[in-house]
Amino acid sequence: MIRVAIIGYGNLGRGVERALKQNADMELAGVFSRREPATVQTDGASAYPLAELEDYKEKLDVCILCGGSATDLPIQTPAITKNFNTIDSFDTHAKIPEHFANVDRVAKEHQTVSIISTGWDPGLFSLNRLYAQSILPEGETYTFWGKGVSQGHSDALRRIVGVADAIQYTIPNNDVIEKLKAGEKMNLTTRDKHLRECFVVLAEGADEEAIRQEIVTMPNYFDEYDTTVHFISAEALKRDHQAMPHGGTVLRTGTTHEKTKQVIEYNLQLESNPEFTASVLVAYARACARLAKEKRYGAFTVLDIAPSYLSPIDDATLRRELL
Amino acid sequence: MIRVAIIGYGNLGRGVERALKQNADMELAGVFSRREPATVQTDGASAYPLAELEDYKEKLDVCILCGGSATDLPIQTPAITKNFNTIDSFDTHAKIPEHFANVDRVAKEHQTVSIISTGWDPGLFSLNRLYAQSILPEGETYTFWGKGVSQGHSDALRRIVGVADAIQYTIPNNDVIEKLKAGEKMNLTTRDKHLRECFVVLAEGADEEAIRQEIVTMPNYFDEYDTTVHFISAEALKRDHQAMPHGGTVLRTGTTHEKTKQVIEYNLQLESNPEFTASVLVAYARACARLAKEKRYGAFTVLDIAPSYLSPIDDATLRRELL
Repeated sequence: MIRVAIIGYGNLGRGVERALKQNADMELAGVFSRREPATVQTDGASAYPLAELEDYKEKLDVCILCGGSATDLPIQTPAITKNFNTIDSFDTHAKIPEHFANVDRVAKEHQTVSIISTGWDPGLFSLNRLYAQSILPEGETYTFWGKGVSQGHSDALRRIVGVADAIQYTIPNNDVIEKLKAGEKMNLTTRDKHLRECFVVLAEGADEEAIRQEIVTMPNYFDEYDTTVHFISAEALKRDHQAMPHGGTVLRTGTTHEKTKQVIEYNLQLESNPEFTASVLVAYARACARLAKEKRYGAFTVLDIAPSYLSPIDDATLRRELL
Repeated sequence: MIRVAIIGYGNLGRGVERALKQNADMELAGVFSRREPATVQTDGASAYPLAELEDYKEKLDVCILCGGSATDLPIQTPAITKNFNTIDSFDTHAKIPEHFANVDRVAKEHQTVSIISTGWDPGLFSLNRLYAQSILPEGETYTFWGKGVSQGHSDALRRIVGVADAIQYTIPNNDVIEKLKAGEKMNLTTRDKHLRECFVVLAEGADEEAIRQEIVTMPNYFDEYDTTVHFISAEALKRDHQAMPHGGTVLRTGTTHEKTKQVIEYNLQLESNPEFTASVLVAYARACARLAKEKRYGAFTVLDIAPSYLSPIDDATLRRELL
């Protein structure tokens, strides 16, 4: 059995707890949180103070870090990797090289394994971009996201004076995807690839038209997109917009000899983004335990790990059943 | 530079020659064929007698074996792996474990590397099945093929007395795929998943209705499918059916917590099946050379190889650009 700890218990941590129940070769040793353990409402797992994690050094094979990329993981992943094999979903794209270097240094010094930036983007989308561009070197890769909630854009809406609450969905332009798949050459702008749909609850007395204008012209977030704004009640927001769907498409269109068109498409349709991300983390936690057993210390990403490391099934059976 | 030889020069070998021109870190040392070299019409590569391959032992990094799975590869891959790193597209699913064992034994004894059963199915489809089932352990995997030519079914048509020539397309049932993606639970029979479309040139005096009946009731090949038969002229067959398109879909529908649906889809649309297969072989030839440099001798499949091994780009750049 691979003994796993969850570090941090929000939507992602809860998803990991659920995913572990689907994997018979793994057991959850506990949830470690900065919060008072009694206040952590798990689906059954025991909760412990994060400060006591080191006491469990001999009792854990992998720690799955479920904190945020902005402030938690840059500190937590290197710190916890001093004593444990770790896996995180660090997703601040521009800072991945620095995070990798920090974690790699600690892991090699302390003889542990860490897999960083796991999930679906970065993660499964990254490795599909890699496979596709390696196989079709002459071509273009496109990534589309959605339909799904963008936390950053939802936060931007909520910061507008006069907005009581809001949520924003990123919607891929499926017409464009179909045209690319059909081999059409397109010079795509940001506006062509995605639409943005906002559901906004107004504060009392707020001016609907003024707020709509402020949204659709907001630089960096909305001005480069076609944005639709719907004003709804607080009740409707709560009733209809609590799910966390997401997904997207990685498309590689290439040519082999002369004009022979070849298309590789990878697509995710997720009813729960955090639960799916958690499922990816759990599969890579298995890989992490195996790499540690092989003493391959250091930091890894999904790009460095053979597919068979994600599976509980032995290699001979995989060859027989999947090839 | 990775120095590559092509062993066997049919559609696949020609595709490899073309693919190598798209990869600046690889060079084609020559085509080795059982045919008289002067009769091998390449796209520019030098042709040599296969019997002289051993003389090139110090001049080649990887041999890409482009023979057939029925009789060539079971003999050639183990034999050539005695002296060279090799890669093949062996695709007789039921015999892969035996082929792997034979090649693995030779490769370990002679300190070479061989990657077997590369291509898209087995190959890219296999590794997508593996990723998807590892991430969503509670779910179902479906593979659909087409639209594309089935060589086996085309051959079966041509063996019918009264058929002068013929080609058969396997066509996936897209309605079923859409229903599965929408989360519908379906008990699928063979007939539900694919349609078969035949284009047949009659021999002189042959009875159209009798031949149609013989086709649609042919056991193992057509009786379990909805089959359409079109009778066309020899000219039309030659004019409209020379391309070798193919493709297909690997679909995993799973649930995470309770009824939360998650869908992973991998889809290929190929205008040339042999050229795409060749492109996959060439990317894995790069991995083969790297494994040999690391002295990781033995047989491998796509399931055992980290994605980054397929790329000519260094790991730090891949992390910065693809994660």
